[in-house]
Amino acid sequence: MLRKYGAEKNACVSCDNVAMNNLHAPTGSAAATEATFANLHNDSFLRACLRMSTDHTPVWLMRQAGRYLPEYCATRARAGSFMGLATNRDYATEVTLQPLDRYPLDAAILFSDILTVPDAMGLGLSFAQGEGPRFATAVRDEAAVAKLAVPDMEKLRYVFDAVSSIRKALTQDGKGRVPLIGFSGSPWTLACYMVEGSGSDDYRLVKTMMYSRPDLMHRILAINADAVAAYLNAQIDAGAQAVMVFDSWGGVLADGAFQEFSLAYSARVLAQLKRTGPLGETIPRIVFTKGGGQWLQDMGELDCDVLGLDWTVNLARARALVGGTERRPGKALQGNIDPNVLFAQPAQIAAEVAKVLDSFGKPHQGSGTGPTHIFNLGHGISQYTPPDHVSALVQAVHSHSRAMRA
Amino acid sequence: MLRKYGAEKNACVSCDNVAMNNLHAPTGSAAATEATFANLHNDSFLRACLRMSTDHTPVWLMRQAGRYLPEYCATRARAGSFMGLATNRDYATEVTLQPLDRYPLDAAILFSDILTVPDAMGLGLSFAQGEGPRFATAVRDEAAVAKLAVPDMEKLRYVFDAVSSIRKALTQDGKGRVPLIGFSGSPWTLACYMVEGSGSDDYRLVKTMMYSRPDLMHRILAINADAVAAYLNAQIDAGAQAVMVFDSWGGVLADGAFQEFSLAYSARVLAQLKRTGPLGETIPRIVFTKGGGQWLQDMGELDCDVLGLDWTVNLARARALVGGTERRPGKALQGNIDPNVLFAQPAQIAAEVAKVLDSFGKPHQGSGTGPTHIFNLGHGISQYTPPDHVSALVQAVHSHSRAMRA
Repeated sequence: MLRKYGAEKNACVSCDNVAMNNLHAPTGSAAATEATFANLHNDSFLRACLRMSTDHTPVWLMRQAGRYLPEYCATRARAGSFMGLATNRDYATEVTLQPLDRYPLDAAILFSDILTVPDAMGLGLSFAQGEGPRFATAVRDEAAVAKLAVPDMEKLRYVFDAVSSIRKALTQDGKGRVPLIGFSGSPWTLACYMVEGSGSDDYRLVKTMMYSRPDLMHRILAINADAVAAYLNAQIDAGAQAVMVFDSWGGVLADGAFQEFSLAYSARVLAQLKRTGPLGETIPRIVFTKGGGQWLQDMGELDCDVLGLDWTVNLARARALVGGTERRPGKALQGNIDPNVLFAQPAQIAAEVAKVLDSFGKPHQGSGTGPTHIFNLGHGISQYTPPDHVSALVQAVHSHSRAMRA
Repeated sequence: MLRKYGAEKNACVSCDNVAMNNLHAPTGSAAATEATFANLHNDSFLRACLRMSTDHTPVWLMRQAGRYLPEYCATRARAGSFMGLATNRDYATEVTLQPLDRYPLDAAILFSDILTVPDAMGLGLSFAQGEGPRFATAVRDEAAVAKLAVPDMEKLRYVFDAVSSIRKALTQDGKGRVPLIGFSGSPWTLACYMVEGSGSDDYRLVKTMMYSRPDLMHRILAINADAVAAYLNAQIDAGAQAVMVFDSWGGVLADGAFQEFSLAYSARVLAQLKRTGPLGETIPRIVFTKGGGQWLQDMGELDCDVLGLDWTVNLARARALVGGTERRPGKALQGNIDPNVLFAQPAQIAAEVAKVLDSFGKPHQGSGTGPTHIFNLGHGISQYTPPDHVSALVQAVHSHSRAMRA
């Protein structure tokens, strides 16, 4: 369904940066629909997010602008470091568009990192060569928690500038080639890195705080949620046409703890998000919890449009649980092929793509709304992926999903 | 239910080593029940495995003999290395009993490693200080797969000798203090290590083989399954009173691939396992798939008695799905507290223990069979765990589970 957002007003603090008509459209349902799709050459991703029919299953890939592309590595070499790349508007624009120039993908995603928000809180994010992210300052005691606050969004201006710049670069003949997705880490996922100081095998430090000082953990999560909401709203103002919350580490939590420490704070983000962009267009919200397949029914209650799924989830079962029907509201589903399928040969990739598409089954067709599927990996693409194999995957998604509708 | 195993005969190739009456009891149901429980001071674990009532919920901890215990570290230092410890009968016996001397645990588990079988295949297992397991030879191509075979069980004699020795050491006043669990890695989990050569973040190499050369992967898995079955049968002959298959990496597989490459081969192991030990006693079988919570219904079809669960699983839901009732067969459930709970304070540990016990609910009481629960962690205990906190956990399980039955 398309919700009616008539009662809301947007501040649009930064839409001066957006390369588009700056008049705010009325936000009634029909006008919002018009505004959402009018300025796009390929609106299949946004339509599928809103459970509307498309002539093929749209596809994009988590981390589609990444190290598996030689042109990405060349740009990164020029930028000097990952953060040099992410904080420079022109570089971020360049790498965001690289996969779109190679493959007929149906969406672009802002090139950035999930950890920009705690970096703006002053924790000092860096990426050592060949390693994951690391914070100079970890948040491990009451004093460190007391110092945390929602950062001034001006510190994240480089992200919003990148969003505006990418929107402009995506424009062809006055319309966007595909929609641009903005994103953030979830409050819980940010907290994992903030407490651990880096990635972790066992999440011992963050879970020690959670089990022994739940008051401190709730305080971190509340600040993170409010910061993430402000951050995503500013991305929307800058031109993001959909937003995604990456709950990359929700799946490491115990049943019960997930609902209390991850899901509740993703809900707190969603409650503060703008419904519409600068032109009154509907901004779909996607929540992806890696390892969250057992909590689909809980996630079905979130005020979002799309649920991202990893490869452990059976799409037919997920559709039955939370996908809704033509008569009943539900979530669009996004995912969920194992990125390691891309190491098989093209014919095998096509067979695995067909399995995933067939598992979801025929999506909604015709007018109104119903169950829809957005094809994606179940996790970020591996840096070792052969680029030609990505072509095979995208082509297989488009051709098989068109054949399914025939 | 207790199955009737009257038609079966056991070879008992090694039960000369077992410190017990060597007469084989008849294997009918009542006699098997008698043989199963007669020689134990504390039979609560075996009773719960067979869905029979107990006056408290039995508890043991994965990796209960481990680095969090100073006495373990002292023995390991004497042994020189992990494999020095695991391959020496006397050391293995000593460390197996250490946690039982500290805590009133309801079961002992053989001190060994899940990777002994591929080591016996000639792949050369080692443990570098502070790192995980590593194989000198990885199995990555057709030629390496062609060389694999079920190893001569004599190469694993040190394990069977340890089982016999531990059984003897557990005997007090002619009876075992608690039952001894034998174990192995699952065929899929062994294959992960055999192909990757070590642990992995992304399982890229093993999944590349699986997706691109499924024929090779099936060959590895078939050999692994037959080897694991022979290995567990020899442990049963040597005195193991229950056996557990650790499918530690089943949860990294995609839906569909899990059923084909992990579950089917755990089933192949189970199909070859002895039903009874040297005295005709019933030998319960436990299968634990880390990250397998979404496939509980599939696992409910396995020919095993107990399913191990990690902390992401809601025990009430698992009980409803596969736990059966007083009238309907089902699986006993084992698990599933987050090991990181042990970093909280004792009162908080007790509260989390109560949550897990209450989530399962009141187990079967009285005669016959019904839903039962064996308390455990959802994964191995952390080396950083304060030993006193384990006392708090075990005491909380015993006292709260007794109170639940009152």
